[in-house]
Amino acid sequence: MLWTQSRIRLPAHPAGFHLVTDAICSGTESLKDCKIGVLHLFIQHTSASLAINENADPDVREDLQRHFDVLAPQNQSYYAHTLEGPDDMPAHIKAVLIGSSLSVPVSDGRLALGTWQGIYLCEHRDRGGERFVIATLQGVSA
Amino acid sequence: MLWTQSRIRLPAHPAGFHLVTDAICSGTESLKDCKIGVLHLFIQHTSASLAINENADPDVREDLQRHFDVLAPQNQSYYAHTLEGPDDMPAHIKAVLIGSSLSVPVSDGRLALGTWQGIYLCEHRDRGGERFVIATLQGVSA
Amino acid sequence: MLWTQSRIRLPAHPAGFHLVTDAICSGTESLKDCKIGVLHLFIQHTSASLAINENADPDVREDLQRHFDVLAPQNQSYYAHTLEGPDDMPAHIKAVLIGSSLSVPVSDGRLALGTWQGIYLCEHRDRGGERFVIATLQGVSA
Repeated sequence: MLWTQSRIRLPAHPAGFHLVTDAICSGTESLKDCKIGVLHLFIQHTSASLAINENADPDVREDLQRHFDVLAPQNQSYYAHTLEGPDDMPAHIKAVLIGSSLSVPVSDGRLALGTWQGIYLCEHRDRGGERFVIATLQGVSA
Repeated sequence: MLWTQSRIRLPAHPAGFHLVTDAICSGTESLKDCKIGVLHLFIQHTSASLAINENADPDVREDLQRHFDVLAPQNQSYYAHTLEGPDDMPAHIKAVLIGSSLSVPVSDGRLALGTWQGIYLCEHRDRGGERFVIATLQGVSA
Repeated sequence: MLWTQSRIRLPAHPAGFHLVTDAICSGTESLKDCKIGVLHLFIQHTSASLAINENADPDVREDLQRHFDVLAPQNQSYYAHTLEGPDDMPAHIKAVLIGSSLSVPVSDGRLALGTWQGIYLCEHRDRGGERFVIATLQGVSA
């Protein structure tokens, strides 16, 4: 049995959807030793999220950003939580829509992602700063 | 190795987003004995959800409620599932958007939440009644 | 301790929300031997999702499809990713909103679903073809 837990620091990113698969894999202790397992990722923030989607065309990530700005727009008349800036309440809404955690199966020392899948850091603040992800790996070793 | 499974009863809440971190922690068997692990939470209902977001300003939770009512409004002309009341189909939509399950890393006997994170019961019905959450804890003990 | 990993093939479905609980359960190796556990499901595609919702009235699934077409409409002027057809970018948005993975508790050899819950394959493309789900079961055996 294999259990490891790592705290991965992601440097500051601008608002938007960013591919972080490599940073996650290299920051996860013992990933290559895991024969069958699940990698659990958890972002310790309320205005950023983790998601999985297309790893190729960067237009997908920009379209996602534009569309989530439509789904959770700034400056709605019914927002009461406005003191932290116009991008803050939309950021909380996007985080609830997309989610704080993600689990990915592990097979033979690698994430069992589909061909076109990558892991996204979804940064919902204009100046979110660095973000921390807890990566918990559980499984059986080779 | 540590494996426990608890069924946690949450009393009836009004429609909206409610902090239930304490009820979840106190209802999870052996949480304090877990050195490294993952707590999996699953709500056994189709019109309520679990989410993680801001644990401080209650305005965030009220803004979330108002905005999810915009994202999944009542009485849309194309709703066919209307027999259980005007709040029922929006409740199903919100449950699919937010999700029925949640996983949180555990470190040294505590949930490894960020400073501002709490666990929400998202009640999408006007009179949802009590709700049940299956809490499955897996990990290694100290 | 019990760890199994299966690759489940779901045949092509039309765009929409489809109940696949039986296919998932019969495709998961050793499910009936698991006393306490968690089943992790992961769809290896970027334009389909997994969700949990109402297993009875099929109107719920059709209303969900109609409403997600409103939440992520085709042919928005700001979409740049258009080469793969008008249903492709909405499919990526829906996949991020609903999610690629799902975890369900297991008790006494069965999924611990609520009475009205079933597992959905959410097919977001008009012609998505067959889809593959990695089912990783972890737990303790009876």
